[in-house]
Amino acid sequence: MVMHMTIRVAVAGASGYAGGETLRLLAGHPEVEIGAVTAHSNAGSLLGEHQPHLRSLADRVLLPTSVEHLLGHDVVVLALPHGASGEIAAQLPDDVLVLDLGADHRLESAADWTSFYGSEHAGTWPYGLPELLLTHEPGAAASETKQRERLAGVRRIAVPGCNVTAVTLGIQPGVAAGLVEGRDLVAVLANGYSGAGKSLKPHLLASEALGAAQPYAVGGSHRHIPEIAQNLRAAGAPAVSISFTPTLVPMSRGILATVTARLSDDAARLDPATLDARVRQAWEDAYVGEPFVRVLPVGQWPTTAMTLGANTALVQVAVDHAAGRVVTVTAIDNLVKGTAGAAVQSMNIALGLPQTAGLTTEGVAP
Amino acid sequence: MVMHMTIRVAVAGASGYAGGETLRLLAGHPEVEIGAVTAHSNAGSLLGEHQPHLRSLADRVLLPTSVEHLLGHDVVVLALPHGASGEIAAQLPDDVLVLDLGADHRLESAADWTSFYGSEHAGTWPYGLPELLLTHEPGAAASETKQRERLAGVRRIAVPGCNVTAVTLGIQPGVAAGLVEGRDLVAVLANGYSGAGKSLKPHLLASEALGAAQPYAVGGSHRHIPEIAQNLRAAGAPAVSISFTPTLVPMSRGILATVTARLSDDAARLDPATLDARVRQAWEDAYVGEPFVRVLPVGQWPTTAMTLGANTALVQVAVDHAAGRVVTVTAIDNLVKGTAGAAVQSMNIALGLPQTAGLTTEGVAP
Amino acid sequence: MVMHMTIRVAVAGASGYAGGETLRLLAGHPEVEIGAVTAHSNAGSLLGEHQPHLRSLADRVLLPTSVEHLLGHDVVVLALPHGASGEIAAQLPDDVLVLDLGADHRLESAADWTSFYGSEHAGTWPYGLPELLLTHEPGAAASETKQRERLAGVRRIAVPGCNVTAVTLGIQPGVAAGLVEGRDLVAVLANGYSGAGKSLKPHLLASEALGAAQPYAVGGSHRHIPEIAQNLRAAGAPAVSISFTPTLVPMSRGILATVTARLSDDAARLDPATLDARVRQAWEDAYVGEPFVRVLPVGQWPTTAMTLGANTALVQVAVDHAAGRVVTVTAIDNLVKGTAGAAVQSMNIALGLPQTAGLTTEGVAP
Amino acid sequence: MVMHMTIRVAVAGASGYAGGETLRLLAGHPEVEIGAVTAHSNAGSLLGEHQPHLRSLADRVLLPTSVEHLLGHDVVVLALPHGASGEIAAQLPDDVLVLDLGADHRLESAADWTSFYGSEHAGTWPYGLPELLLTHEPGAAASETKQRERLAGVRRIAVPGCNVTAVTLGIQPGVAAGLVEGRDLVAVLANGYSGAGKSLKPHLLASEALGAAQPYAVGGSHRHIPEIAQNLRAAGAPAVSISFTPTLVPMSRGILATVTARLSDDAARLDPATLDARVRQAWEDAYVGEPFVRVLPVGQWPTTAMTLGANTALVQVAVDHAAGRVVTVTAIDNLVKGTAGAAVQSMNIALGLPQTAGLTTEGVAP
Repeated sequence: MVMHMTIRVAVAGASGYAGGETLRLLAGHPEVEIGAVTAHSNAGSLLGEHQPHLRSLADRVLLPTSVEHLLGHDVVVLALPHGASGEIAAQLPDDVLVLDLGADHRLESAADWTSFYGSEHAGTWPYGLPELLLTHEPGAAASETKQRERLAGVRRIAVPGCNVTAVTLGIQPGVAAGLVEGRDLVAVLANGYSGAGKSLKPHLLASEALGAAQPYAVGGSHRHIPEIAQNLRAAGAPAVSISFTPTLVPMSRGILATVTARLSDDAARLDPATLDARVRQAWEDAYVGEPFVRVLPVGQWPTTAMTLGANTALVQVAVDHAAGRVVTVTAIDNLVKGTAGAAVQSMNIALGLPQTAGLTTEGVAP
Repeated sequence: MVMHMTIRVAVAGASGYAGGETLRLLAGHPEVEIGAVTAHSNAGSLLGEHQPHLRSLADRVLLPTSVEHLLGHDVVVLALPHGASGEIAAQLPDDVLVLDLGADHRLESAADWTSFYGSEHAGTWPYGLPELLLTHEPGAAASETKQRERLAGVRRIAVPGCNVTAVTLGIQPGVAAGLVEGRDLVAVLANGYSGAGKSLKPHLLASEALGAAQPYAVGGSHRHIPEIAQNLRAAGAPAVSISFTPTLVPMSRGILATVTARLSDDAARLDPATLDARVRQAWEDAYVGEPFVRVLPVGQWPTTAMTLGANTALVQVAVDHAAGRVVTVTAIDNLVKGTAGAAVQSMNIALGLPQTAGLTTEGVAP
Repeated sequence: MVMHMTIRVAVAGASGYAGGETLRLLAGHPEVEIGAVTAHSNAGSLLGEHQPHLRSLADRVLLPTSVEHLLGHDVVVLALPHGASGEIAAQLPDDVLVLDLGADHRLESAADWTSFYGSEHAGTWPYGLPELLLTHEPGAAASETKQRERLAGVRRIAVPGCNVTAVTLGIQPGVAAGLVEGRDLVAVLANGYSGAGKSLKPHLLASEALGAAQPYAVGGSHRHIPEIAQNLRAAGAPAVSISFTPTLVPMSRGILATVTARLSDDAARLDPATLDARVRQAWEDAYVGEPFVRVLPVGQWPTTAMTLGANTALVQVAVDHAAGRVVTVTAIDNLVKGTAGAAVQSMNIALGLPQTAGLTTEGVAP
Repeated sequence: MVMHMTIRVAVAGASGYAGGETLRLLAGHPEVEIGAVTAHSNAGSLLGEHQPHLRSLADRVLLPTSVEHLLGHDVVVLALPHGASGEIAAQLPDDVLVLDLGADHRLESAADWTSFYGSEHAGTWPYGLPELLLTHEPGAAASETKQRERLAGVRRIAVPGCNVTAVTLGIQPGVAAGLVEGRDLVAVLANGYSGAGKSLKPHLLASEALGAAQPYAVGGSHRHIPEIAQNLRAAGAPAVSISFTPTLVPMSRGILATVTARLSDDAARLDPATLDARVRQAWEDAYVGEPFVRVLPVGQWPTTAMTLGANTALVQVAVDHAAGRVVTVTAIDNLVKGTAGAAVQSMNIALGLPQTAGLTTEGVAP
């Protein structure tokens, strides 16, 4: 016999891309009833005007984003611009599960926060990347080997940045196993445009995007950098430095993260065949039993299309012996495993539901 | 309490796009267990090599497409090239539900079949478009107003062509209501490339497709023409002629069908405001209560992205008074409502399951 | 020996797409020196910030768009929003060649103008579509068979709308030859996003465009409709009515116009083979000797990619005998033959230069 | 007075993408007359069937690719698969200028050739990258600072690989100036599909490409690696190692190469402001006066669309002080500066024509 509970979930910021994707997933979640859907400037209009693909919710009226409309739910998802979630979250009861899709509560270092975001730090919440390895983190209990274990029962979750998730999942097995250096990482990403949100900026126009690849935030300024470093330190890197370059390419969704890391001194001393085997073993071990992170068979490389609409992260790894580097490529859907799917997965864990409820591993392809 | 049955389904042609999409939907179907997956030239390899987006089925071995491997299932889906399904179907027991995604069993007229396909007619099966109107069809019982009613309990179903579904759903309400002429229809479609299958032809290469719109089968030669005519006759048109032009545009999935029809003499005599109201009423009435076909609110036009991955058909209609024509635009996902979703929906109806089982109305957008 | 003249050309509206494309073509024009480049809100910045692809002009400073900066040139190109060109043009000397890329001076009927644009009519200028047939126009002299002849020596030119050019070139041969009806035309277009300009509107964002086809201005409201009708009357149609539906598809440039017309009564009486031959003859005759309009060989259909960056219009035609319609497909680059190339071609004709100066027939493909 | 010479050029492999692009450029070259156009399996058909965008050459008949048809020209361009050019070139007279667009004659090291291509080395020809720096090359005469000087008067030219050109132009200024290490370079590229040629392979189908980013030749196996190393050694690197990952993204043309290099020990000791200034100076000095390679203004990053159809390479550079790396991004059109434009530019130099004849710096954008 299966017991069903009904969890009432409110979504704030429902007219944007992250909010819309959260609603898409919740609409198919067997234990969820969607409560209030709120917006800022679009309050008062129908959801169907802004998210016409969400047919079952098209007639919902968008309420103003305010605490009064968010009260009375079991779960509140905040899909708000950076800086907007702290104040609202502070007014929600402690026993309500609040998930922040924005960056406000991700960083442990207030200095990093101020350096990259320029405002006051809102505090740190449990981090919603269940597959994050905690191998060597100083504060980790012996029994805690992944972040998942820290999410059970919590009532505040900071959902990771999409680029951060792709980079972390791709390279952390090597970091944790001591096979690669955390210093001198290089990550270059091919990014779909939905990651930039619904902002009306000239370089986000279709005319500019079609037929073009364009980099942004080059040279160390991207706000996801300290978050990646924080994760890889948790996974065991004594120090992390990373050259990080995202590039917008003509697709709506998806992140393809190519991350390379120098072999550690120990790894570099191994003979090539042993090294290849150790690397493969480390990556496979890291994700054995994980429903959403898969290391592909040798020789098959991930593409973003394989993950469209799914909560899957697909990873492949190879050793470039001549270059002395490990190369990993990771594909995710930035709006699912990169944002809304991570939120639902973390919500499931926090509430004791099956981790996979409302989520799929099957991409919509071709 | 909910009773669950388990239906074993085999999919023949599992390495192609239609077969892959059928598997994607069946993998999320609560009452289905996926049995044999078969292929022709790819038999013996893993499904994951050909459909890497279907993570939960990646380790399945493709069996050869032969009757012996298809026996022992409750349902068999044939996703085979035209001409290949007849022989196999003939060897499957009568009590097995067989769904043919190919064209072989769609046309009632053997002459039409031979004229457009050039081979011998395989016979006609019940047609898997549940929302097809049967308003004036000579053979229709008074109680039968839609094709859905003819699908209950059947064991053979011919799944419609994707373009046919989009065109039929868009214009049939006007035909059935006597508001438009069935003669002199004009349909121009924007088509995603997956509709052409995995064929290795130069014009289907990404280099040729990106940045280009290209028409094909122009001038009356497309094989979907007699099938459209057959449907619209069922919906009440005494005679049908249609100018039909598909154009490939740079997207992987989706059909946007623009169909225009001349006003009938009766309709042309109405004053403009009455005509507008009658037209809207006819379209809304045709699909009231339908879970998968929606007439959008006045002024909102469908886009293919709204339907990606969903079994939804979105329809809008307007009267162009100056041109004396009704204009409709319909969006579907060619692989879902256009193919695999139609198959699952029809299967559900035939087996007495809830029509929507395993299907979603929520598109993956943006 | 070749005599070279140097023509000084100013471009107003140089930071937009139409202005930028005009500059791209003029930069390669052997007889042109580019003078003032002006803008409205972007005045004072460098052209390279807005048109980084125009390397040879990147350091030009954008002047404010005002008469004082436009004076002193042989030619002034106005790439301004509708309604802005009339006042400026009125202040430019009569012997300066002024080309208006906007709609203000295209329509002969003030009533049409007011009905579709809602403002006061600015007057009519010679129309910059050299290949427009004048077969039966009441005011046409016996010697004038194409619009080209009316452009020699003029000093004001209204450059046609991009959709208008594609539709007119596609169907006018049949209209002029009496083979098709001008009434009950149907045109459906696949349009690249640059046709919508650099406007910051949500539906023009890359996230919305990628993977989607979306119609706009459906049902008789598009402003290009009266302009098409005006052209086809010039080409010999006693009356014109047209159902016109543009659809945005994921490409930056290009128009693929599918236009169908009913056979005239005379044409419908011909036997099929004769009709096919007459149709082909009419289309080929209309464009014999034209450098920029080509009827493709039988069976080869145009794609937009074939025309990218070129001033070419590619046309194909077929008779759909069952539907009783002629079907034509025309491909152009909306920014070249549809806008800036048409301006340069018309400028060449008005100034007595070789018609092809500064223009190419070779598309950038694939 | 201008003297005009007419150079007769034959193109072998005219039905492929590289051959087609060469013809597009030659058709606009003021001093060139296009002679024989040849093909292998397409011999006997019209060029217009395979390159319908080349309107002025559509009626040319493709001759078989054999020496007899290539004789009698001043210049022969070989756009053939790897391995096919050596034999033909050997039979062409020494005073005919032969340009090989394939890889056969690029590498100086026979061992590298055999290791990456697996066949016998065909020998080394002068390398057609005029902007290649020769700062420290052992064999370089004091007066030779760029490869351009070695191309004057030669009659055999090996045209560089497209990825190689983008990577070399991006990073060589830092190598030559001693600011970065040649070891431990990391290059990740976003590549348009035309770079893969007209091959009929499943992963090159539009259905697979649209909406997807996919890596290939990951982990040190790509054949362009030794060619990059060879170039950077010429530019002054004592040793080169590079992690090189190309990724196909949904565009037809273009390469966006992100290349990062560790700061040299000397550079790392500079204070940040001095380092920034030195880096900028080095990049600007390297390309001062170059017509086709531009370092963009500070803060403006290149996109592939800026270079479409043009022979331009656009470069930007920044120092990531935290990561201890220089990051450069370079955009080119793979078929122009990456292939056919490089050939025409090198041909111009070899023949003493103006370097820019037949080439443009203006991209076709948006």
